[in-house]
Amino acid sequence: MKYFFSKEYENIQSSFIRDVLKIANQKDVISFAGGLPNNKLFPRKEIESIFKEYSLKLPNDLFQYSATNGLPKLIDVLKTQFNLKDEILISNGSQQALDLISSIFLNKDDKILVEEPSYVGAIGLFKSHGAICHTIQLEDDGINLKKLESKLQKNKYKFFYVIPTFQNPSSISYTLSKRKALAKMAIKYNLILVEDDPYRYLNFKNKIQPTIYDFAPNNTIYIGSFSKIFIPSLRVGYIMATSEILGKITVAKQYKDLHTNLFSQYILYKYLSNFDIFKHIKVLNSSYKKKCDFFYKTLKDELNDVLEVEKPKGGMFLWAKLKSNMDTKVLFEKSKKTKVLYIPGSVFFEDKSEKSYLRLNFTNSSKKEIKEGLKRLKKVFS
Amino acid sequence: MKYFFSKEYENIQSSFIRDVLKIANQKDVISFAGGLPNNKLFPRKEIESIFKEYSLKLPNDLFQYSATNGLPKLIDVLKTQFNLKDEILISNGSQQALDLISSIFLNKDDKILVEEPSYVGAIGLFKSHGAICHTIQLEDDGINLKKLESKLQKNKYKFFYVIPTFQNPSSISYTLSKRKALAKMAIKYNLILVEDDPYRYLNFKNKIQPTIYDFAPNNTIYIGSFSKIFIPSLRVGYIMATSEILGKITVAKQYKDLHTNLFSQYILYKYLSNFDIFKHIKVLNSSYKKKCDFFYKTLKDELNDVLEVEKPKGGMFLWAKLKSNMDTKVLFEKSKKTKVLYIPGSVFFEDKSEKSYLRLNFTNSSKKEIKEGLKRLKKVFS
Repeated sequence: MKYFFSKEYENIQSSFIRDVLKIANQKDVISFAGGLPNNKLFPRKEIESIFKEYSLKLPNDLFQYSATNGLPKLIDVLKTQFNLKDEILISNGSQQALDLISSIFLNKDDKILVEEPSYVGAIGLFKSHGAICHTIQLEDDGINLKKLESKLQKNKYKFFYVIPTFQNPSSISYTLSKRKALAKMAIKYNLILVEDDPYRYLNFKNKIQPTIYDFAPNNTIYIGSFSKIFIPSLRVGYIMATSEILGKITVAKQYKDLHTNLFSQYILYKYLSNFDIFKHIKVLNSSYKKKCDFFYKTLKDELNDVLEVEKPKGGMFLWAKLKSNMDTKVLFEKSKKTKVLYIPGSVFFEDKSEKSYLRLNFTNSSKKEIKEGLKRLKKVFS
Repeated sequence: MKYFFSKEYENIQSSFIRDVLKIANQKDVISFAGGLPNNKLFPRKEIESIFKEYSLKLPNDLFQYSATNGLPKLIDVLKTQFNLKDEILISNGSQQALDLISSIFLNKDDKILVEEPSYVGAIGLFKSHGAICHTIQLEDDGINLKKLESKLQKNKYKFFYVIPTFQNPSSISYTLSKRKALAKMAIKYNLILVEDDPYRYLNFKNKIQPTIYDFAPNNTIYIGSFSKIFIPSLRVGYIMATSEILGKITVAKQYKDLHTNLFSQYILYKYLSNFDIFKHIKVLNSSYKKKCDFFYKTLKDELNDVLEVEKPKGGMFLWAKLKSNMDTKVLFEKSKKTKVLYIPGSVFFEDKSEKSYLRLNFTNSSKKEIKEGLKRLKKVFS
C-alpha cells in the first residue's frame, strides 16, 4: 500500500545524528558524539532512597490523571528553588517545550530566526512544523546584533530561537551586555525570543548569568531542563512565559499528551525536597571542568597542528575546526572505521559550505577513553 | 505586546471539558463527567513492592537518554503478553500516539474521517493540525458502511479515526462482521484506519474481540493504552504499524520529546514481569460491571421518564438522551448549581444540532455517590 505522508515528513527517513548514536554503544567504539551526562555522576543512591521512602507509602494522587500544567507542589518548589518569577508548565523535557511552542506559533512557511550554528534537534523540529529558518551568525559573545536588526527590518519572524549559555554546539555564551541588548531589540521590534537554557547551570565557576527573560519577560519564552543537571531519562523540563502564551501552551499540551507523567514529576519533587540539587550541580561542574581541562590539553598536545579550538567555560562540548578546511563529514567515514565518533559540524549549519567543524563531547568519557579516542582521531585527521 | 499565534491556536482558549473537570474536585460536587478509572482499584500495593525492589538496586540504564522507540525489554514483554504481531513504539499514552500520527500525515486542510459522535480530545488535536473532519454516523454495531463507501468515492481522506470497542462517548462496539467489512473496505479504497483501542480489555465478560488491525494490518495504525487498564498517570501507550509508518513516527517522536521517560517504562515493565495484568483487568471488570449495573438500574428507577439509555457491556460510560430533546449544555448550568456534573453530548458532535445527549461516567463513583448524584440529576432534568 502507498502511504501519503505530510509534506514535511514525506522525505524524512532518519537523522544523521541518530544513525551515529546507534553505533556509539558498539564494542570498542569511543564516542565523543552524543550530548550525554556522565553515567557515573547520576544521583543513584539518592534516587534509591526516594524509591525506598515511596515504597512505604506512595502519594495518594500518584495514579490518577493529573493537571495539564504540572504537579502543583513540583511547580511550587521549582519556582522557589530556581527563582522563577512567572507561571510555568511542566513539559517532557525541553524538547517537548519546543514542540509545544512550535504548535501554537507556526504555520507552514512562517519565518523564524535561529543562530548559526545551532541545535539540530530544534531546527529539524521547527522545519517539521513547516517553518523557514533564517540564520544569524554567532560571534564569540553571542550573535551580531546589527545583522539581527537588519533582518528584523526586512522580515517578520514568529520567533528567534536562542541558546544563550554554553550553546550547543559552539559552547558560546552571550555576555551580559549582549543579553541586555538582545532583550532591548526584541522589545523594540516586537520579537519573541525562545530562550532554550539547558546548560545554564553547567558553569565551571558555578557563576550563574542573568537570563534574557530577566530583561524582556513579555517577549521571552524561557525553557528550563533537568536533563543535563539531573536525569535525562526523567524527561522533565519547564516553560515559563506570559499567561497569554502559557494558556495556549496548556491547550496544546492537553491535546498532545494530557500531562507529563506523575512518576517523573514526583521523583523530581521528592529529590528537590530531600536533597540540595545545587550541591549536586557543583559536583557535576567540578568533574566536568577536570574532564574538559584534560580533553583540551590532550587535544592541544596531540592535534594542535590540525585543529583550532577554544577552551569552554562550561557546558558539554568542545567546538573545533580543521585548519585544513577539510570536510569533517567526509572524514567521518574514516573515523567510524577507526572506532572514534564525533558529530561533523555541518549538521549544525544551514549554510552547507561550513564543512570543517566538529563537535566533541567531553562529559561522558574517562581520561583513558579521552586519551585513546584522541589518538585515534589524530590518525583520522593527519 | 501583541502575539501572533498560529491560525489553529489563534482563537483557542480552553476547552469546555477542561473547565468542567476543574470544578469536579470541588467540595460536595458529584462528578460523572471525567473518564477516570476508579481510584480504589489502582494496584497500589504492587507498585509499592516494585518501588521496594528498585530501592535495593535501580536498573543500570535507568538514568541515561534512551531509545526513541522505547525500552527494548518493555517492548518485548508487551509483544508477548498482548500478542502484538508487528513492531511497536512506546508513546506518552495514546494521546501522544494521536499527535505523532497527525504530524506525519496531516497538512493544513487535509481531510480526515471521524465517527459521529467521537472523542473530543482527538478531534481537537486533529483540528489543531489543520485537518478538516468529515463525519460518519455511528449505528448500534458501528458505522454505516454504505455511508462510508459513498464518502470514500467522493473524497480522499488521510485517515479514518475509529474507536471500535466501547467507544467514547457512545460505548458502542463494532461487531465482528463490521470489523471485517471495514477492514475490507479500507483495503479496497487505500484508506488508513487509526484504530484507537483504550477500552478493549474493559469487557464485563472478559471476552476480547479481534482488532480491525488483525484484518488489515497494512492499512491500520493500532493504538494501545495503559491508562484505563493500569495507571493513567504513567502516560504509557503504544503504536503498532508497518515499518514504513513506524519509521516516520520514530523521527516525529525524536523531534517531539526524544523518548518516553524511563521511570514509567521500567515500572510497567516490572509490573508485567512480576504480576498478572490480566488478573488485574478481571478485578476492574468485575467492579465496573457492578457499578454499571447499579448506575443503570438507578437511572431507570429515577429517570426513566426523561432519559433513554442503553446498558453498556463494558467501557466506562453510559450514553443517554433526553426524551424532551432539550439541550443538555443549557441544562448543564443548572446541573453545576445542583453540584452534579456530566458531559453534554454536543461536545462530541460536529453536527451541532445534536443537543440532547449526555455522557455519564460510571467507574469512578461509589454507590452512595451514584444514588445521590442521580437524585440531583432528576431535579435538573425534571
